[in-house]
Amino acid sequence: MTQKPIPDIVIGRLPIYLRALTRMLQAGRQVTSSQELGERLGMSAAQIRKDLSQFGEFGKQGTGYNIEFLAKKLQEILKIDRVWKVAVVGAGDVGHALANYNGFAHRGFQITHIFDNDSKIVGSNFNGFTVQSISDMQKIIQKEEIKVAMLAVPAEVAQDVVDLLVECGVHAILNYAPVNLTVPQDVRVQYIDPAVHLQNMTYYLD
Amino acid sequence: MTQKPIPDIVIGRLPIYLRALTRMLQAGRQVTSSQELGERLGMSAAQIRKDLSQFGEFGKQGTGYNIEFLAKKLQEILKIDRVWKVAVVGAGDVGHALANYNGFAHRGFQITHIFDNDSKIVGSNFNGFTVQSISDMQKIIQKEEIKVAMLAVPAEVAQDVVDLLVECGVHAILNYAPVNLTVPQDVRVQYIDPAVHLQNMTYYLD
Repeated sequence: MTQKPIPDIVIGRLPIYLRALTRMLQAGRQVTSSQELGERLGMSAAQIRKDLSQFGEFGKQGTGYNIEFLAKKLQEILKIDRVWKVAVVGAGDVGHALANYNGFAHRGFQITHIFDNDSKIVGSNFNGFTVQSISDMQKIIQKEEIKVAMLAVPAEVAQDVVDLLVECGVHAILNYAPVNLTVPQDVRVQYIDPAVHLQNMTYYLD
Repeated sequence: MTQKPIPDIVIGRLPIYLRALTRMLQAGRQVTSSQELGERLGMSAAQIRKDLSQFGEFGKQGTGYNIEFLAKKLQEILKIDRVWKVAVVGAGDVGHALANYNGFAHRGFQITHIFDNDSKIVGSNFNGFTVQSISDMQKIIQKEEIKVAMLAVPAEVAQDVVDLLVECGVHAILNYAPVNLTVPQDVRVQYIDPAVHLQNMTYYLD
C-alpha cells in the first residue's frame, strides 16, 4: 500500500501541538481533548482531530487524548525522539544568541559546532564552544554526519555557505540571513527574519 | 466600492518580494521581471504577477518592473514607508540579541524601549538602551503610542505580559516565547520559535 503524502501544512502544525502538550505535561496534566487543544491554539477541534487522524488513532471518542502518549507519538512522527546535532554557521550576534539559547533541550536538537570565517574569532571560546574555521566545516560536518544547520551569516555570503552545507550532506537549514536561498529539492529551508515577520503585521495596523 | 480583502497569504509574500527588490537595488539594478523574481524566490512568475496585480499596475508587459518604484509601492502597502517604534519586553539573551540586531534599519522599525521585570536589570544599560521596569510599561507605551512589540519573556509569563500589551494599545506582537498566545481578533501575533522551525524539517530527514 502506498501512503498518500501528508501535506506540509499538517506537518507544520504538529510541532505546535507538541509544544502545547509538553506545557500541559509540565503542568502535571494527563488527559486533554481536541476541544481544549483547539482553544489553546486558536484552532477548531475538528481541524486538530483531522490532522492527528492522518497518523492513526490517538484517542477515543469521549475519553480524550493521553497527553504523554500523544506527545511521544508526535515526537516519533517528527523524528525528534532522537537528538539531532546542529551546526551554527556565523558567530556574530545571532549565532551567539543561538549558542546561548536554552530552548532546544528536550526538543530534539543539540548545537554541537559553531563555524565562522573570521580568523580573529576562530579558536575563541563562545558559550562553551570553540569557534571552528569555516574552511574545516565540510570535513567536520561529514565526519559528524550533521544534517541540520542554522545559518547566521551576512546576506551577501549566505548562498555560498548554503552551497557548501548542502554539498557535505546538510538537508535542513534554518536561515537567519535576510535573503532567499536556492537549494536542491531534497533540502529543506526555513526562514527567520524578524523584520519580515513584523512587516507581515503592519499592513493591518491603523 | 467595497474592496475585497487581500488574503493574508498574499500580504505575507510582499515582505519577501520587497526584500529581494531591496537586494537588487543595493546591487545597482534598476529593472526586473516577474520571471527573475520568481527564480530568486523559488516561485512562479505568474504567482508574483497575480499577487502584485491585486494592488494595481506596477509594470508593463515586456518592459518589466522598475525596481525602485515597485519597492516604494510595497513599502506603502505594508505601511513601512514610516518608522514604527518597537518595544522589546524581556531583557534576557533573546531581548539582548534583538536590541543588538541591525536588520531593522531602513525596514520600517526602530526599537525604542526595552522592559524587564528583574530589578537587578532595570536601570542598567543595554546596547545603548536603559532597561525600564515592566511596571512602567503600560504608561510609557501609551504615551509613546507604540503599536508594535517583540516578546522575549519566559513562556510562563508570556500570556500575562501580552494581556498588558494589548490593554495599552499594542496591536502587533512578534512572540519569541515558546507558547501560543490568546489575543483579541484585531491584534496580530507572529511566532518565532527556532525549535519549532527545526521540527518542521526533521520529518523529512532520513
